[in-house]
Amino acid sequence: MSAARNKANQRIAALKSLLCVGLDTDPGKIPEVFSSCPNPVLEFNRSVIRATCDSAVSYKINTAFYESRGIEGLRDMEATLREIPGECLAIADAKRADIGNTSRMYARAFFEHWSFDAITVAPYMGEDSLEPFFSYSDKLVFVLCLTSNAGSADFEEQRLEGGEMLYQRVLDRVSGWSCGGNGGVVVGATKSAMLADIRSRAPGLFFLIPGVGAQGGSLEEAAEAGVDADRCSALINISRSLIYPAGTFGSIGEYEEAVALEARRVHEAVRKVL
Amino acid sequence: MSAARNKANQRIAALKSLLCVGLDTDPGKIPEVFSSCPNPVLEFNRSVIRATCDSAVSYKINTAFYESRGIEGLRDMEATLREIPGECLAIADAKRADIGNTSRMYARAFFEHWSFDAITVAPYMGEDSLEPFFSYSDKLVFVLCLTSNAGSADFEEQRLEGGEMLYQRVLDRVSGWSCGGNGGVVVGATKSAMLADIRSRAPGLFFLIPGVGAQGGSLEEAAEAGVDADRCSALINISRSLIYPAGTFGSIGEYEEAVALEARRVHEAVRKVL
Repeated sequence: MSAARNKANQRIAALKSLLCVGLDTDPGKIPEVFSSCPNPVLEFNRSVIRATCDSAVSYKINTAFYESRGIEGLRDMEATLREIPGECLAIADAKRADIGNTSRMYARAFFEHWSFDAITVAPYMGEDSLEPFFSYSDKLVFVLCLTSNAGSADFEEQRLEGGEMLYQRVLDRVSGWSCGGNGGVVVGATKSAMLADIRSRAPGLFFLIPGVGAQGGSLEEAAEAGVDADRCSALINISRSLIYPAGTFGSIGEYEEAVALEARRVHEAVRKVL
Repeated sequence: MSAARNKANQRIAALKSLLCVGLDTDPGKIPEVFSSCPNPVLEFNRSVIRATCDSAVSYKINTAFYESRGIEGLRDMEATLREIPGECLAIADAKRADIGNTSRMYARAFFEHWSFDAITVAPYMGEDSLEPFFSYSDKLVFVLCLTSNAGSADFEEQRLEGGEMLYQRVLDRVSGWSCGGNGGVVVGATKSAMLADIRSRAPGLFFLIPGVGAQGGSLEEAAEAGVDADRCSALINISRSLIYPAGTFGSIGEYEEAVALEARRVHEAVRKVL
């Protein structure tokens, strides 16, 4: 059984929270108050983690925001990863996948070299491109299924011969590839009308649900429709609307208070649903 | 007009070659003779480039092989990138894509921070996930279309309502998104029966064709079917069967001779087709 899945579900049950905090840290958006820090990105991430760790089940590091600054950014990614509390699920939002011998290298990077608990991967190239990730039975592998962006209409929501949509085919195949409970899917909260149907088709998968907040999805609907029969196995990711609160801050403490307040609001709303 | 595309086509015309050398450098596969070098990966890559630079139009760095060793590996990737001759197209085989604001970060990483000429991207999330890459009109963007692996049957070759296959839909959409000639597709040489049809449906795209060599595709068929009406705008990538020749080598010079011999053989075979 997937140790990563157990860790996430234990924390979901203990906190009655589904909060995954997205560390999509854009140096251009970090509040002014961090500008005098020797390393604004790392100090900002530390503040976000401090402010949310009582409510967060998981932290999701979006690799693009770190890669955009090359090795310096990846050093910040590594340092941030070390700051994530051990009881929280650390997700690499990497959306990787390639032919098998190459995917093995990506899996080694994120699961062994960097020791993330989970990763997001892209399904286009099919089973042998994802098998190297699924072969880590102690981890969690979130396959893109129905994403929160407008472009999901281009391919994901195209209907296949026989009537099902591409994302439904992906969902069914991922259920088969999941090894010892380590399978998951990414389903956008902006697609709440489909979320309940997707959950009913895949009762055994773990759901990672982005799209609440800046992208406009409803938190309560996502929580209600996303959890499994045991009221767990789902995470709702919130990035921009949580880590970049409106306003200016006189101190780092003030910034952390604003983030903590929003994290508690999200936590409370989900607690009511669970 | 895409400067990257022009650069590649000028070299194709000058050399009568379509060779793209895949620098999929696996530390576990580097010949023994490099083991005493202070940095075997970098010295190996330098040798491959020295041995192939008279025949190569392009070098493709597969990011997975460097990421698998974390920051140390990425330092080798950066150093390798600097070794690629300026007249050759430098491709980041990264297969990235995410929602728009995240893809912008990936595009910034590979096109600005690392200054690659071209990148491979994954189409699953649709237009807004690829637009940030296509917005660089001087670069080349290769979208996964029909890949060389067995898993291509799982989704890429599924038939949509209306009769076309998913990869054909991807092909048609990419033709529309291509900006000033900066669009390309990845089509596996193992699919040579479909390659000519794909070329005829997308006369204006640049083709990146992996799958010759270790994966079994035919070089001559790929060259004949892959080029456009001007006998250019295609690259045939060869990695493992070129950079890991059979045998043991008494010196780095001997290794380079074996690689140069195979590169010239590939070059000559393609020259006859062109």
